[in-house]
Amino acid sequence: MSDALIRLAEVLEARKAADPGQSYVARLHRDGLDRILKKVGEEAAETLLAAKDAAAGGPLEAVVRETADLWFHTLVMLSHLGSGPEAVLAELERRFGTSGLEEKAARSAAANGD
Amino acid sequence: MSDALIRLAEVLEARKAADPGQSYVARLHRDGLDRILKKVGEEAAETLLAAKDAAAGGPLEAVVRETADLWFHTLVMLSHLGSGPEAVLAELERRFGTSGLEEKAARSAAANGD
Amino acid sequence: MSDALIRLAEVLEARKAADPGQSYVARLHRDGLDRILKKVGEEAAETLLAAKDAAAGGPLEAVVRETADLWFHTLVMLSHLGSGPEAVLAELERRFGTSGLEEKAARSAAANGD
Amino acid sequence: MSDALIRLAEVLEARKAADPGQSYVARLHRDGLDRILKKVGEEAAETLLAAKDAAAGGPLEAVVRETADLWFHTLVMLSHLGSGPEAVLAELERRFGTSGLEEKAARSAAANGD
Repeated sequence: MSDALIRLAEVLEARKAADPGQSYVARLHRDGLDRILKKVGEEAAETLLAAKDAAAGGPLEAVVRETADLWFHTLVMLSHLGSGPEAVLAELERRFGTSGLEEKAARSAAANGD
Repeated sequence: MSDALIRLAEVLEARKAADPGQSYVARLHRDGLDRILKKVGEEAAETLLAAKDAAAGGPLEAVVRETADLWFHTLVMLSHLGSGPEAVLAELERRFGTSGLEEKAARSAAANGD
Repeated sequence: MSDALIRLAEVLEARKAADPGQSYVARLHRDGLDRILKKVGEEAAETLLAAKDAAAGGPLEAVVRETADLWFHTLVMLSHLGSGPEAVLAELERRFGTSGLEEKAARSAAANGD
Repeated sequence: MSDALIRLAEVLEARKAADPGQSYVARLHRDGLDRILKKVGEEAAETLLAAKDAAAGGPLEAVVRETADLWFHTLVMLSHLGSGPEAVLAELERRFGTSGLEEKAARSAAANGD
């Protein structure tokens, strides 16, 4: 499984135990859940502002950067609470029927002429 | 490439043109960017509340569901603006050095005894 | 004391005990703190969007309406938690030295030639 | 008219032209609308977190302080856009029938035995 968010979560998990003087991720964990959640709220606001700017002709890159910040801080939040992106991606796949298994089943069904 | 978010984005992209009477995604696009961004703001708030509850002994499942809602609505936002998760994942990989290419390079370096 | 927010808070306090079928305020209290806080988050997001629109030439009235929604829901939150606008206004007056008492003291000092 | 928020808005209006090196308000205006709106989003998130803590036995004072921060930054936003609390209070009074004029009318009606 080579999912980009899961690879990233592994990196973030490893940095949890790093020196807070060296690692922003370690600093967030040391400062605690409220600090992490404030960042989630802040990045959500910045995503909204960048999206409004993009709709008015501003750079899409800013929306991409702010969304990256938002997803990153939600990954740190999940890690802080003992969860991770696998659970969120499984929930999304469940809702939208896009799991690899279903896809494989669909392909094999197609091959069988179903 | 089997990234879960990218498969999901393909599904969401396909539903963009669906009947708004049948598809929530089509309805969001028809209602426009502000409607989508309000949902992003709302789901960010709900993620914060669920995370506080989880820290106080509440269910992790609620955090997972709210984070799924938040990521989902940011994917619809990206799609509405003509972007997608590839750009966000590339930004995160660039920041954290977790791209598949680097990983492959790292593995091949390891195999070569570097 | 004729402060507009305090008069409003008295009205909201009275509606706390109203029939939820008749009163939105009573409904918010019955639904509980999380429901109220989701509305605070939602109205904050809508305020941001209206402010961005106003900066791009949109109507100031929309910013005024969204800010009214935001203040209103924070008043309901304060009421739900057993506090009220007096405490918030006292905090702001303390920070900015704009309390009536200080103003009176300043005027009397001015009259005395201080 | 001695409304606390209106007195505060006058102070904030005066500081708009102050030296950004001396005044936080002047600094917010110099940095521009997006900076102000990010603070509104951030303070909304902090209000939610403090309210959740208060519901779990934490200090009401923290909710009061965060709400003060939130109202303060919305006042700076209104000032930056060329509006102010009078418009918001008038909107709230219009919605809830709590204007001084109505109150006076109600009192005089009561005195007349209506």
